[in-house]
Amino acid sequence: MIKPLTSAILLALASFSTHAAEFVLTDAASGRDVGNWQVSSKSLGIQTATPFSIEKRRLHGGKQEGVDILVVNNGVMTITLVPTRGMGIYQVKSGALRLGWDSPVKEIVNPAYIDLESRNGLGWLDGFNEMMVRCGYEWTGHPGIDDNGQLLSLHGRVQNTPASSVKVIIEDKAPHRIRILGEVSERTFKKAELVTATELSVEPGSNRFELHDALTNRADYEDEYQIIYHSNFGTPILEAGAQFIAAASEISPFNDYAKAGLHSWQTYLPPTKGFDEMVFNLKPKGDKAGQSLAVLLNKAADAGVAVGYNIRQLPVLTLWKNTDTRQQGYVTGIEPGTSYAYNTKYQRPLGLVPKIQPGETKHFDLSYTVLRNASETAAAVAEVAHLQGTEPVREISEPLVDLSKK
Amino acid sequence: MIKPLTSAILLALASFSTHAAEFVLTDAASGRDVGNWQVSSKSLGIQTATPFSIEKRRLHGGKQEGVDILVVNNGVMTITLVPTRGMGIYQVKSGALRLGWDSPVKEIVNPAYIDLESRNGLGWLDGFNEMMVRCGYEWTGHPGIDDNGQLLSLHGRVQNTPASSVKVIIEDKAPHRIRILGEVSERTFKKAELVTATELSVEPGSNRFELHDALTNRADYEDEYQIIYHSNFGTPILEAGAQFIAAASEISPFNDYAKAGLHSWQTYLPPTKGFDEMVFNLKPKGDKAGQSLAVLLNKAADAGVAVGYNIRQLPVLTLWKNTDTRQQGYVTGIEPGTSYAYNTKYQRPLGLVPKIQPGETKHFDLSYTVLRNASETAAAVAEVAHLQGTEPVREISEPLVDLSKK
Amino acid sequence: MIKPLTSAILLALASFSTHAAEFVLTDAASGRDVGNWQVSSKSLGIQTATPFSIEKRRLHGGKQEGVDILVVNNGVMTITLVPTRGMGIYQVKSGALRLGWDSPVKEIVNPAYIDLESRNGLGWLDGFNEMMVRCGYEWTGHPGIDDNGQLLSLHGRVQNTPASSVKVIIEDKAPHRIRILGEVSERTFKKAELVTATELSVEPGSNRFELHDALTNRADYEDEYQIIYHSNFGTPILEAGAQFIAAASEISPFNDYAKAGLHSWQTYLPPTKGFDEMVFNLKPKGDKAGQSLAVLLNKAADAGVAVGYNIRQLPVLTLWKNTDTRQQGYVTGIEPGTSYAYNTKYQRPLGLVPKIQPGETKHFDLSYTVLRNASETAAAVAEVAHLQGTEPVREISEPLVDLSKK
Repeated sequence: MIKPLTSAILLALASFSTHAAEFVLTDAASGRDVGNWQVSSKSLGIQTATPFSIEKRRLHGGKQEGVDILVVNNGVMTITLVPTRGMGIYQVKSGALRLGWDSPVKEIVNPAYIDLESRNGLGWLDGFNEMMVRCGYEWTGHPGIDDNGQLLSLHGRVQNTPASSVKVIIEDKAPHRIRILGEVSERTFKKAELVTATELSVEPGSNRFELHDALTNRADYEDEYQIIYHSNFGTPILEAGAQFIAAASEISPFNDYAKAGLHSWQTYLPPTKGFDEMVFNLKPKGDKAGQSLAVLLNKAADAGVAVGYNIRQLPVLTLWKNTDTRQQGYVTGIEPGTSYAYNTKYQRPLGLVPKIQPGETKHFDLSYTVLRNASETAAAVAEVAHLQGTEPVREISEPLVDLSKK
Repeated sequence: MIKPLTSAILLALASFSTHAAEFVLTDAASGRDVGNWQVSSKSLGIQTATPFSIEKRRLHGGKQEGVDILVVNNGVMTITLVPTRGMGIYQVKSGALRLGWDSPVKEIVNPAYIDLESRNGLGWLDGFNEMMVRCGYEWTGHPGIDDNGQLLSLHGRVQNTPASSVKVIIEDKAPHRIRILGEVSERTFKKAELVTATELSVEPGSNRFELHDALTNRADYEDEYQIIYHSNFGTPILEAGAQFIAAASEISPFNDYAKAGLHSWQTYLPPTKGFDEMVFNLKPKGDKAGQSLAVLLNKAADAGVAVGYNIRQLPVLTLWKNTDTRQQGYVTGIEPGTSYAYNTKYQRPLGLVPKIQPGETKHFDLSYTVLRNASETAAAVAEVAHLQGTEPVREISEPLVDLSKK
Repeated sequence: MIKPLTSAILLALASFSTHAAEFVLTDAASGRDVGNWQVSSKSLGIQTATPFSIEKRRLHGGKQEGVDILVVNNGVMTITLVPTRGMGIYQVKSGALRLGWDSPVKEIVNPAYIDLESRNGLGWLDGFNEMMVRCGYEWTGHPGIDDNGQLLSLHGRVQNTPASSVKVIIEDKAPHRIRILGEVSERTFKKAELVTATELSVEPGSNRFELHDALTNRADYEDEYQIIYHSNFGTPILEAGAQFIAAASEISPFNDYAKAGLHSWQTYLPPTKGFDEMVFNLKPKGDKAGQSLAVLLNKAADAGVAVGYNIRQLPVLTLWKNTDTRQQGYVTGIEPGTSYAYNTKYQRPLGLVPKIQPGETKHFDLSYTVLRNASETAAAVAEVAHLQGTEPVREISEPLVDLSKK
């Protein structure tokens, strides 16, 4: 949409309110983009215990041509966001630690080169390599023909949708929280008007960042929606003997193949040829406010990651163990969601395809904490134990869905 | 195709013949594009009662990344063309009036982000928001599997094809007519060689612009072609009590759902939840030269738009009433065409899938007039009445096609 | 993939080793591209009998928007490579001679605008106009549903994949061989990790250039692969009475339609309306090292092209005679490959879908020689005759595959 030039916002001009410095990097409404860009605590004249910087850069080469990345360095972590891929998070680095994984897909793929419906709806796999992928919001899950005859491609469309607007806010008051706002729209005439205001927020010097996403149905009709926050971790945290700990009431195998791994769901194999993937469905537990936590630890329990989420927003948790060889992508997924990874048509009978009313906004709040030493991992483990209480995680031997039935 | 550099045309260099100033903005043959660009009567040193300007601008943000628009301001109207989307017309603004509509699709979408065959051939809906969309030329109409087993996606491919060349001509002689020439090619080895030389032409100070399109079959074999000029209008012209007036011999409902709206085809509802769309098929009438006219008026009949076309070129007229809620896209389409909106396989038996011979050129001439006051609307209404004569528009109660049959 | 900036290679900075000047033009690992660029023997200060130059240029206009070409002028030939289209070769010009053809597709199409699965897997035809197209490597051949239910689109994906890296090397020692290295990756999580290091190599002043491609399976699992080097020639070499000469033990028609052309396989018709295409399957013969040769000559046998390849790498040869009208694309294809042009499912029983082991590299070496006069054509014909020996090419009347069976 083209607004008159006279009213076009001035891009990249800092607007210093009493509360924050604000930078508009991309704005589809005016059709403008700031191009390569950077800012730092130093360039802003902000006195801070931990200096920080933010850089936007356009990538080239292969199917990565024209992709924009946004690198936030808060002094402790370097977070790489990808506006061109739905504000996904490519990776987070903190010292020797890394949140992310080594996918066979090496480039950060421009959605222009992806055909989501290819390979019977598996086109999404051509670009899958991020630490955090939003799988939604029109639908999520494995590809398949829905009841209305439409192919639902793997994990929806939002991650392969370039952000319509990108804004950086740096709060004026210490600790000068950094907020990255990106709007991603799923708009198809007569089909969907789902607009997600994503926010990644982090304080300088912190080992934790947060997501605050707000999904609004801008249509005048009720719609279904689904979302999985597909959060993926490989080396150095994932290794033989790494542990998964989550507050949950029950766990069941996704399919027959995963049955064999049910009893050992809390530990990981080394890279294992022929393993492919095992997937488990968990019913997570939260505190009174719904807050839950899932933790991945390395074998020595002196490094890890904690994923916080709210079960009132994201009532189910998928555990994806893809401990195949390194070359195939040795990785595990911790995936809070409205839904499991089944095709949508299987999830409606499970009550896992929620509705969103006209004008309604759904909020999704998550946190990711890099656990850098034994003391930080112990604190996270204690938090899960507290949420879990005395009730053990019940192991259900049969999958929730009988996939042999059409 | 790459011509030697030495013979490459010099882009954006005005070529002042005795007849015109000519600017080549985009030229695939030499592989060149002028980038952001503008010209005006003032910069050209042209003395004119109504100053004019033309600007080419590249858009950014979301799925709009890399889209070029061309804004022609003739002093009375601002016409926004989209070279990247087949030389479609995004909107026309004239004072408080606007030709165009508010689609749920907000960005001017780069075809690189569209997969026309997605959603069983409905991918076109991901980018549909223009005032004037060419639906063709290889095929047009609703998606479906053609008799040869190929999926024909909604409304063909031309609108999602970037223009191969864009040229601006400003005539040297008063009134200094502005002509925008864009070539759009549908070229697929062994399948199609349909090349359309589009032209939008407007005089400074005028409230009317014209399209002169020439479709040539560059193949050595006869081919089918179809075209609908999908011309779409929302607020402020469309409103409760707005009127549609067209010279026609008969009208019939597109399908069973439209039967209920047959008798009130000339008036419009307010934004109406649950209305979805009603479509009507008209047989238009023209004068001796084939010239016909269709008019949309607001309720007070002091604002509107007149669409002129020739029934020897475009023998049928589709009326699309999409008076659903504002948020869904409150809009009506006035759509002269070779064909109705049925899938191609239904139109062959109706004789509405014409052929084009090798080397043959088909011409399509349309005009769009912004009606700015009661006097201008009255003149347009009188013109329709003159074309209509005393014969009323016959209402046929049954659809032309029985869609219940496969 | 994003390497830290500090370790990013310096692009376009010549690295003069004792052996070569090396220029990195595109590098996805660092996300960088040099943009428009050129170098010449003169700018490098190289004394050479035949001056040479290399130019990289970005194209605009139509579906060609954003395509990079690389033009190598070795003083005798101008070779146009297309990094954006898998390092394909658009054309080679040498004086009045030209290797290449006039496709109905005029632009060098950016893969972003191509949906390979469209038209039941014929989307590849939207971009087909090069002299040399790699058809592979995940699969090749006509589109169809494979045994596992997946649509294999026409001729695979590699040609519609932008090169991840492009490097130019100019050897320091005379004759200062020019080498163009491009890496093209077919990477899909859980599906493929096939990486091809392509190389085009040519000496200044030579009428011959070579391809040295190395396909590596970077996955930890065995995979199938297929490749056809689809090498296409039209006017001025192809004409009525042009001749095809290849060392071969047998030839058979691809399908029933080609049976009528079996006995005249060595000669060509003029542009012939209604001819469409005839395809023939050859079993080529090589020397002790496997080297084989196929030659196309004009009628006077004073101009032509020789295609050299190795039957240990590429054991079969397809001859494609598309001598339809000029406008449709009057062209013949000389296509050494691992496989014929049948859909993959038909080639497995023929033993023509080879496997590649984890980490294994397959090499493909080809040469293309412009034959500029009767003496050069005579030498090439003599070479084929030597390879052929006294055994005639056996004509098999029935196709290898019964396409009437599903």
